[in-house]
Amino acid sequence: MRLATIRNAQGTAAAVDTGSGWRPINGVSDVNDLLSRPDWREFADAAGHREDVSPLDESTLELAAVVPAPGKVICVGLNYASHIREMGRELPAHPTLFAKFAETLTGPTDPVIAVAEDSELDWEGEMALVIGARAHRVTEAEARSRIAGYTVANDISMRGWQFRTVEWLQGKIWAESTPVGPYLVTTEAFDWSRSRLRTTVNGQVMQDHAIGDLVFSPEQLVAYISTMLPLNPGDLILTGTPGGVGRARDPQVYLSAGDVVEVLIDGLGTLRTLIVEP
Amino acid sequence: MRLATIRNAQGTAAAVDTGSGWRPINGVSDVNDLLSRPDWREFADAAGHREDVSPLDESTLELAAVVPAPGKVICVGLNYASHIREMGRELPAHPTLFAKFAETLTGPTDPVIAVAEDSELDWEGEMALVIGARAHRVTEAEARSRIAGYTVANDISMRGWQFRTVEWLQGKIWAESTPVGPYLVTTEAFDWSRSRLRTTVNGQVMQDHAIGDLVFSPEQLVAYISTMLPLNPGDLILTGTPGGVGRARDPQVYLSAGDVVEVLIDGLGTLRTLIVEP
Repeated sequence: MRLATIRNAQGTAAAVDTGSGWRPINGVSDVNDLLSRPDWREFADAAGHREDVSPLDESTLELAAVVPAPGKVICVGLNYASHIREMGRELPAHPTLFAKFAETLTGPTDPVIAVAEDSELDWEGEMALVIGARAHRVTEAEARSRIAGYTVANDISMRGWQFRTVEWLQGKIWAESTPVGPYLVTTEAFDWSRSRLRTTVNGQVMQDHAIGDLVFSPEQLVAYISTMLPLNPGDLILTGTPGGVGRARDPQVYLSAGDVVEVLIDGLGTLRTLIVEP
Repeated sequence: MRLATIRNAQGTAAAVDTGSGWRPINGVSDVNDLLSRPDWREFADAAGHREDVSPLDESTLELAAVVPAPGKVICVGLNYASHIREMGRELPAHPTLFAKFAETLTGPTDPVIAVAEDSELDWEGEMALVIGARAHRVTEAEARSRIAGYTVANDISMRGWQFRTVEWLQGKIWAESTPVGPYLVTTEAFDWSRSRLRTTVNGQVMQDHAIGDLVFSPEQLVAYISTMLPLNPGDLILTGTPGGVGRARDPQVYLSAGDVVEVLIDGLGTLRTLIVEP
């Protein structure tokens, strides 16, 4: 099952694809709203099979961030061995965590502004997971059932501000700078351990890596974070980026207006982001 | 004017004190809910003057975190010269920022759990500000009118987890570990530049510092953060802690079950926190 948040004349609506095209889920404003229902799987499945509701025209479908309003957005840094090495660090005993905010997210094909304040705009293609049921102090075994599914994110980072201080937050929270989507693939329909992530800039491959190389798995991350505080339906976790970011290249490469950055994960779809002038 | 979020049989309600005792604000569930009204000042002032509503009994008043559900909680590290020096750092050109989440907040007299996973539980007494009107790319001069008022916070930190990695987040987001309150004093009724913060542990003074010594003022912080993303009504900013935290002492001092930590800011009131067993 695939879930999406679509834009329409009323704002947004949740939609579901159970195999025969996208159908809107009546009365549900987005995927956050959907996941707040304990019966979200059955509810969405039923909506996907309603013969009286016509499938949406895919050619005109406009997608928002798949979860536009998560209560929490938690990101993992340094979670692929290759990226850890290119940043000059050792393999970690614990995940490195930082935050984003809902205002930072944007849709899977929306443009992102090359902000005037920081010329070091960089890409970070990532697999993300969305929580489907409350998780507080869960084990890794319990964690799997608390994950609704997986999606793609580009943790576009303003490297100048990121490294102004020891804390990365201010390079990571710019408004509408993190594309998320295009849709959520529920857990039973996606095996991250056999999938691959690829990031291109203007068609040139910059990241190309097996997601199975994650240091901390999605289940380990959910269990670890849930030790500290409850994860709730709709919360978004970005699992980290593999090697190949612009800052780690020699010479360094940064994005500027006119560039197109794409992040593709086999089975989860593609984010396509045009960088535009402020 | 003072605003609070009180607990009652229905959950919580916003309350106001205009000088003659606390009165509930009918139909408003908390201070976040109140501040979402563009006319919140006039609305609260009118509620505070309603002669037909009896003042609440202060002796039984139970307070929640003054803003229990902020969309964003942004914290400033290293913002007092004395604390920067004790942590062995130089005066910064830019504020150091990190995040918390709404689930991390707790009431001004609620107990805080000494979590089993980290024995290095430390205090950080801080002045906090609450946003009263949307601020996006505002100047310092504009920022003042976007601040609703000020309150007290104790950024209780799990130092072991904080320093597991280069990012502090995981020492800062434990559930219900950050007391905030007791109430919000609106901007016209509080002058932070003439106030003083004091933290005691079991009655012993640990932090005692003029808030006027802040490196980055509240207005500077709002302007700086608003460059990156919009601040919205109810968003909470913790402005940093002065010297005297437990980790920086010789020998180091940490909190454990049975300890009582208090943070007092002249004009803003006191947080009183009993540390309890997991």
